[in-house]
Amino acid sequence: MFGPDVTFLGVERCDLGQPDTFKGADAIIIGAPYDAGATYRGGARFGPKMIRTTDYLPHDSSRPHLALRVDPLKDLRVLDAGDVEMPGMEQRLPLDNLENAVRVATEAGAIPIILGGDHTITWPDVTGVARVVGWGRVSVIHFDAHADTGDVQWGSLIGHGLPMRRLIESGACRGDRFLQIGLRGYWPEPPTLKWMAEQGMRSFEMHEVVQRGLDAVMEEAFEIATDDCDGVFVSVDVDVVDPGTAPGTGTPEPGGLTGRQLLDTVRRIAIDLPVVGIDVVEVSPPYDTAEITAFLANRVVLEMLSGILYRRGGGTWDSIPKTLLEDRL
Amino acid sequence: MFGPDVTFLGVERCDLGQPDTFKGADAIIIGAPYDAGATYRGGARFGPKMIRTTDYLPHDSSRPHLALRVDPLKDLRVLDAGDVEMPGMEQRLPLDNLENAVRVATEAGAIPIILGGDHTITWPDVTGVARVVGWGRVSVIHFDAHADTGDVQWGSLIGHGLPMRRLIESGACRGDRFLQIGLRGYWPEPPTLKWMAEQGMRSFEMHEVVQRGLDAVMEEAFEIATDDCDGVFVSVDVDVVDPGTAPGTGTPEPGGLTGRQLLDTVRRIAIDLPVVGIDVVEVSPPYDTAEITAFLANRVVLEMLSGILYRRGGGTWDSIPKTLLEDRL
Amino acid sequence: MFGPDVTFLGVERCDLGQPDTFKGADAIIIGAPYDAGATYRGGARFGPKMIRTTDYLPHDSSRPHLALRVDPLKDLRVLDAGDVEMPGMEQRLPLDNLENAVRVATEAGAIPIILGGDHTITWPDVTGVARVVGWGRVSVIHFDAHADTGDVQWGSLIGHGLPMRRLIESGACRGDRFLQIGLRGYWPEPPTLKWMAEQGMRSFEMHEVVQRGLDAVMEEAFEIATDDCDGVFVSVDVDVVDPGTAPGTGTPEPGGLTGRQLLDTVRRIAIDLPVVGIDVVEVSPPYDTAEITAFLANRVVLEMLSGILYRRGGGTWDSIPKTLLEDRL
Amino acid sequence: MFGPDVTFLGVERCDLGQPDTFKGADAIIIGAPYDAGATYRGGARFGPKMIRTTDYLPHDSSRPHLALRVDPLKDLRVLDAGDVEMPGMEQRLPLDNLENAVRVATEAGAIPIILGGDHTITWPDVTGVARVVGWGRVSVIHFDAHADTGDVQWGSLIGHGLPMRRLIESGACRGDRFLQIGLRGYWPEPPTLKWMAEQGMRSFEMHEVVQRGLDAVMEEAFEIATDDCDGVFVSVDVDVVDPGTAPGTGTPEPGGLTGRQLLDTVRRIAIDLPVVGIDVVEVSPPYDTAEITAFLANRVVLEMLSGILYRRGGGTWDSIPKTLLEDRL
Amino acid sequence: MFGPDVTFLGVERCDLGQPDTFKGADAIIIGAPYDAGATYRGGARFGPKMIRTTDYLPHDSSRPHLALRVDPLKDLRVLDAGDVEMPGMEQRLPLDNLENAVRVATEAGAIPIILGGDHTITWPDVTGVARVVGWGRVSVIHFDAHADTGDVQWGSLIGHGLPMRRLIESGACRGDRFLQIGLRGYWPEPPTLKWMAEQGMRSFEMHEVVQRGLDAVMEEAFEIATDDCDGVFVSVDVDVVDPGTAPGTGTPEPGGLTGRQLLDTVRRIAIDLPVVGIDVVEVSPPYDTAEITAFLANRVVLEMLSGILYRRGGGTWDSIPKTLLEDRL
Amino acid sequence: MFGPDVTFLGVERCDLGQPDTFKGADAIIIGAPYDAGATYRGGARFGPKMIRTTDYLPHDSSRPHLALRVDPLKDLRVLDAGDVEMPGMEQRLPLDNLENAVRVATEAGAIPIILGGDHTITWPDVTGVARVVGWGRVSVIHFDAHADTGDVQWGSLIGHGLPMRRLIESGACRGDRFLQIGLRGYWPEPPTLKWMAEQGMRSFEMHEVVQRGLDAVMEEAFEIATDDCDGVFVSVDVDVVDPGTAPGTGTPEPGGLTGRQLLDTVRRIAIDLPVVGIDVVEVSPPYDTAEITAFLANRVVLEMLSGILYRRGGGTWDSIPKTLLEDRL
Repeated sequence: MFGPDVTFLGVERCDLGQPDTFKGADAIIIGAPYDAGATYRGGARFGPKMIRTTDYLPHDSSRPHLALRVDPLKDLRVLDAGDVEMPGMEQRLPLDNLENAVRVATEAGAIPIILGGDHTITWPDVTGVARVVGWGRVSVIHFDAHADTGDVQWGSLIGHGLPMRRLIESGACRGDRFLQIGLRGYWPEPPTLKWMAEQGMRSFEMHEVVQRGLDAVMEEAFEIATDDCDGVFVSVDVDVVDPGTAPGTGTPEPGGLTGRQLLDTVRRIAIDLPVVGIDVVEVSPPYDTAEITAFLANRVVLEMLSGILYRRGGGTWDSIPKTLLEDRL
Repeated sequence: MFGPDVTFLGVERCDLGQPDTFKGADAIIIGAPYDAGATYRGGARFGPKMIRTTDYLPHDSSRPHLALRVDPLKDLRVLDAGDVEMPGMEQRLPLDNLENAVRVATEAGAIPIILGGDHTITWPDVTGVARVVGWGRVSVIHFDAHADTGDVQWGSLIGHGLPMRRLIESGACRGDRFLQIGLRGYWPEPPTLKWMAEQGMRSFEMHEVVQRGLDAVMEEAFEIATDDCDGVFVSVDVDVVDPGTAPGTGTPEPGGLTGRQLLDTVRRIAIDLPVVGIDVVEVSPPYDTAEITAFLANRVVLEMLSGILYRRGGGTWDSIPKTLLEDRL
Repeated sequence: MFGPDVTFLGVERCDLGQPDTFKGADAIIIGAPYDAGATYRGGARFGPKMIRTTDYLPHDSSRPHLALRVDPLKDLRVLDAGDVEMPGMEQRLPLDNLENAVRVATEAGAIPIILGGDHTITWPDVTGVARVVGWGRVSVIHFDAHADTGDVQWGSLIGHGLPMRRLIESGACRGDRFLQIGLRGYWPEPPTLKWMAEQGMRSFEMHEVVQRGLDAVMEEAFEIATDDCDGVFVSVDVDVVDPGTAPGTGTPEPGGLTGRQLLDTVRRIAIDLPVVGIDVVEVSPPYDTAEITAFLANRVVLEMLSGILYRRGGGTWDSIPKTLLEDRL
Repeated sequence: MFGPDVTFLGVERCDLGQPDTFKGADAIIIGAPYDAGATYRGGARFGPKMIRTTDYLPHDSSRPHLALRVDPLKDLRVLDAGDVEMPGMEQRLPLDNLENAVRVATEAGAIPIILGGDHTITWPDVTGVARVVGWGRVSVIHFDAHADTGDVQWGSLIGHGLPMRRLIESGACRGDRFLQIGLRGYWPEPPTLKWMAEQGMRSFEMHEVVQRGLDAVMEEAFEIATDDCDGVFVSVDVDVVDPGTAPGTGTPEPGGLTGRQLLDTVRRIAIDLPVVGIDVVEVSPPYDTAEITAFLANRVVLEMLSGILYRRGGGTWDSIPKTLLEDRL
Repeated sequence: MFGPDVTFLGVERCDLGQPDTFKGADAIIIGAPYDAGATYRGGARFGPKMIRTTDYLPHDSSRPHLALRVDPLKDLRVLDAGDVEMPGMEQRLPLDNLENAVRVATEAGAIPIILGGDHTITWPDVTGVARVVGWGRVSVIHFDAHADTGDVQWGSLIGHGLPMRRLIESGACRGDRFLQIGLRGYWPEPPTLKWMAEQGMRSFEMHEVVQRGLDAVMEEAFEIATDDCDGVFVSVDVDVVDPGTAPGTGTPEPGGLTGRQLLDTVRRIAIDLPVVGIDVVEVSPPYDTAEITAFLANRVVLEMLSGILYRRGGGTWDSIPKTLLEDRL
Repeated sequence: MFGPDVTFLGVERCDLGQPDTFKGADAIIIGAPYDAGATYRGGARFGPKMIRTTDYLPHDSSRPHLALRVDPLKDLRVLDAGDVEMPGMEQRLPLDNLENAVRVATEAGAIPIILGGDHTITWPDVTGVARVVGWGRVSVIHFDAHADTGDVQWGSLIGHGLPMRRLIESGACRGDRFLQIGLRGYWPEPPTLKWMAEQGMRSFEMHEVVQRGLDAVMEEAFEIATDDCDGVFVSVDVDVVDPGTAPGTGTPEPGGLTGRQLLDTVRRIAIDLPVVGIDVVEVSPPYDTAEITAFLANRVVLEMLSGILYRRGGGTWDSIPKTLLEDRL
């Protein structure tokens, strides 16, 4: 919607209105330039543009992954469907547009990768996937500083603090298959926490992450996520990372993960779990510095695509060679 | 809505729900933290906060105007009603909330001064005033780089490129009493220009402003504005000023007025015309540098308040003493 | 002193000149907008304003702590006394003003929380507390990249590199109950180090912190701090954190703690030790990016207030539930 | 060369290696991402990318000019040939590549519009045009704070302070048909000024511009430029504008034109003179704020294209309607 | 005091404690890194460093003035005495240090050029000059948005809003030979204006400057300044320029002069009046963007030095050649 | 080449053309302001200036290291030879100039410390050292996100992605004594990896660093580096650190080391290995925020100098006192 019509690092375009343009796609990038749901700083409308284009290498649809030795933009069929039209003032309409796009992509057998936009979009994102994969059959791994399980925001049911409640309420996904990693801070209030507990949500606050270690936490999450579900949706709010290193976001909460931790963890998820959808949200370019947050978000997409390809080749997290050059040539 | 609850430079608060809190007000500041109508950069939601607070002097509700020798915050009863709740995603609702607030303030005999927010808000602003002053009896002087007379934006009738058309269509104000100053650039297309001409709008493009001089242009505008109307609404889009000197805005168009020109002109309007409402819009703090755009917008408000007070004391533009100290003590 | 008159996240105001306004206070916020003592970058004068207001949640005097499940702004009586008038050029005068304010707050039984300002203010801060709690009876835990134990700065005894020496010289606190965490870099010279050793100071340079681990270091510090002292003053110079993640400070020294480490550590201190005073200093907003350093400093205050409340309810660091939702509802 | 492959505001692409792709072009945009010639700040390599894409309107290859009532992107055949490969370290090679591209475009009957890049590129730009239009038959109107007539820079004949000397030395254009507008500051030294005078150059320093007025100066320039020449090349160094309003440039010299003056003047040139080539140089995005300098440079291109189209329709500067709406519908 | 020890654009150093190092100096640069007097944003302590070094040309002690054809750094003996030690917290001490330095330079027959620092320094600057040139025999031309004639600031007689009153009170200069250009805004209050009028001050508010034109205003000022006085001190507060183009300052007031106007005017003063001292103040680098304000301040110094040299060669404002190249070689 | 002529934190100057000026030097700082080899963002030309001057302490040629208790600027003879003239457009010439300077410094028995500039300079840096220490007798420890072993860049053999291949091809250093730490991302492609493996390079990708721990990795590197070599050259590309904390660089790749890790590691290398040359590259000030990247690079130099001095006093990494004050006085 904003700026020149470009694709994610130069991958081929497709048109979700024309099925032949995305036949056989492994993954379809969808831009969701929506920030009407933000309760504080906006700017995430420029997230899709910046996540697509922020890189120093040529936009040539090739990214050989150094550690995994796969090239996801070459060896997966990754297409970019452009931005969904999302007029923020029109209530449910922009969200319905997005849900529809995600559904179409999923029906085609592709993994939809939605570039936000504020976190409101996870509501239509997971809904669109669940309509295809199975209502209540998709688990969610949700990286965030915030639980996003509020009920009402300024009198509205739409907002970036509410999508996880909407999803669980609707049954699109089960509360007890909803994993949250990186929560912290001073929100929400007890009634919302009570609601979350009642749903059986498993939320890893940073205190737990620090005390037990991120690896232990993720292993527990992995078990839950794959128990009686048919696929995992991964939602990455970039504010899960410490805002000291990822300032370009709307509601920064100090004390988060490092960028390295996030990249390793999403790579591992992509390798070890059956991912059926991804969104990367809350990148707010006007608050970024030297595009470092956009770079990080771009790499979250690349790490997951690389992991997916590596998994398809039979790889597992433990099979990643520890040494770069010597033992593989 | 965002940040601490502060008033414009420390003036007294009022509550539009409680008539006794604003009895006898000369002017009422109303915050309109709305940027869901922006077609490009957002951020104007923080306009009210920054226009209220950006100053280096104490927030003590006193501002002795150096050139006019009046103190509008002391000698006018200026109150601040805080922000109207404006959830951007809820279509007409936030605009209706604002229109209602403006209407209440106007009914109380005060001049409403609305701090935007994107330019969408001029639709409810002028409507609210016209409901009290008289439907079609308010002329508008509109400073802007853009005509804002578009018809539809992403399928919606709401948006910061459309409010002037909505206003004229509704009859709230007459097209032939609608004055636009500072237009330039590459928008709109011919059909919209045709519609504007049919309404009898008088729009001063920068070419005309430069060739004839701003003074001549304003004199012509003054005559039209006071012809068979009962009051003037002044809408100042900060992008009328050259973005080289006012970068904190959403849709910057090079080649505008200087800050000095804008301040002089709004002062003059306030002194020489019967102002019944004011809005200052499109200040987008995330794109500002050293708050220079917010400073300018704050001064637009102060200049107009000072002019209004000066006018009430019988002053005219020509009666302003040219020399600061000697002939007045 | 600068900008609108606001309180820390909307807590109630008090006036230190009027005892009834702060009767029964648990903690009193005091702004110390002083940066005349800075040897390099200034700007800390805007620290109080930014630490008070930098947040994305409503300024509603409520902050439910996610991990501890307490709400310090609701369940403690936290008041804000506004800024002390501190004309930087007037030598001891501004510091005396501050010392007096801190003393008054402490006498009332409240924990003073002073928002700096440069580190010079710790001199009056600890002095004011010690006058009430007991001369030489307050230990100090001091987070900083720098020892701040210099003797003279540009011929003056006042300065942000000197306060710790002033405090120990005066006897307000004992050198051998002065704990420093996070030191590093290329200062001071040997004579000052010698003086520090003679006072029995225990200073944990980053090499020690890295080699032994922050936990081990803090445990040693906890023992010393509570040995024959009646309370602990916590002084947090935000430059203890790596400037790569907290750039908004005056004398940044690479190689510091992470924000997560700082937040965990001050939370733990507040839970496990008898805190009698706090200051948070050296936040310099003009050098900050996207307010990330101000966010961090705001959270240091919230973490400590939350810890204090948690401690009052009988909690200990080890009693913090490791799991967010399941075992507490 | 840098970032995604986009065209100027969405115009059609062409390939200078394939003549059929640019047959019938009226103007061809050529990117020259070269900043190896900069003597101080670099960054102009990102000029082409930003000049092409910096706008808030859709990149839809349409820009209806408000004052002139023409749409240059629709009614002229404007193509974009992408960036010339310009490896800065390879001496003359990148300049030869550019000269060749300009020559090819000119031979095809199109006006080449080169987006710099530092000012070094004007050497190949004008040379490429002169090879087609006629050696010594092209006059140059050069907007700049600097004369760029130095002889040697760090021992090299290549550099952004030297191109005008190279051009005149080679005979590509005549010194006495070389017009410079906006010079100021403290360079060059007397021998270079002497050389310039000997060539018969006519350089309008800002003192002259201010004292005589820009209009008078331009009228004199117009006469010289059209005397015994077959076309005019217009070279716009964005630093001709005051850096207070156009900070994104490498060698900013205070005291320049306003943006409004530059836009009016280039529009007038395009309407009243036979333009055969254009370059816009020295936009350095890393030093820009809120993209205001890139916006200005984008508008320089649009104003000139609009003027060229207006001229083709028989328009003259004096025929521009002074009033926007009334007298044309 | 801050950063590496450098001189103004590479001129020779001198030591005010060693008379032989500055014998025969025409002008002596003195750094005054003092910002303890600022009432709002600080940062002017870095003014001297940035004004000395902000340029893109080599720091080679040569600056051939393009319009005047003189080289002030080569043909005047300009020395740089480095920074005066000014510990801001020590009340009068730093100001006394500065006054002494200025006096020494003036006694040696040099024109002192003091680089601020905040405007407090004009008190010692003019005092130091008046002690040599004659008590009450120096007129002052003062460029500023603010009158700086306040009486007391936070209980102190020291501050950047007060120096002009201090100077007139002491008799160092006469109120009726005190010219102020560029005032505007909402300060001071009537009693201070009354005091100013009683002193016979002549203050040109921007309204007068705009209505009469800057030239007319300056001509009137010139007459007063040279009436029964022995020399003119020129004090340039960079905030006289519109903050839209000079954002790097502490108390920005919209609606000021253009940079071009300031440069022309100080050049003219230096050519047409007997300048005996200069200061350039209130450059605050942390608020600057791309160093544009520091560039401007650097040029103010160069324009005045160039004008002084041009005057010594018998030049007058009217003798400046209007044409750059043709009539002088 | 750019800005005032300053030395690294005030150390004495020397002139590589005059042997007596650097007789007995322990280390010689050499500026390499070259960024013509950058494939994306430039700006590293200002690296030498910023690395030399970015500090808050006086530039007094003294830096007492807090943890090691040595003062490298006082107790080592560290000189600064200024910048090598490096006109970027002149192909090999600037690199030859640099190689020559490095060779001269090494021949004099000093350790050359080259401040870049982009990474191209490591080619001449190591070559210059190897010509003296022994062709193929220098091992390299290379911190970087990128392998920099490309073959050709835009048709050129010169570029910041290629120097390591040039060095190994020439035999200046052996591929199997080339250690790379911190690699990550999506480059290079398989053929280049194959070439690297064939050379016997040992490259530690971040996956290995994280899985095995940095200490284990460095111990392996130390063994290789000292096996049959006569000295170690250390090349630090600042982008080895996570760009979230070191944004001021040209090709930022998320997921790197922390600043603390880098400082500890280079300190350890300097203490435990025979360092014969150092370069610190890819600091790009225009993309930095609050100079945090320049601070870090400055500290890399100080840590290595301190380590070198500590080693000369017989110290080892394990001999560093873990406790700051108590056991050493």
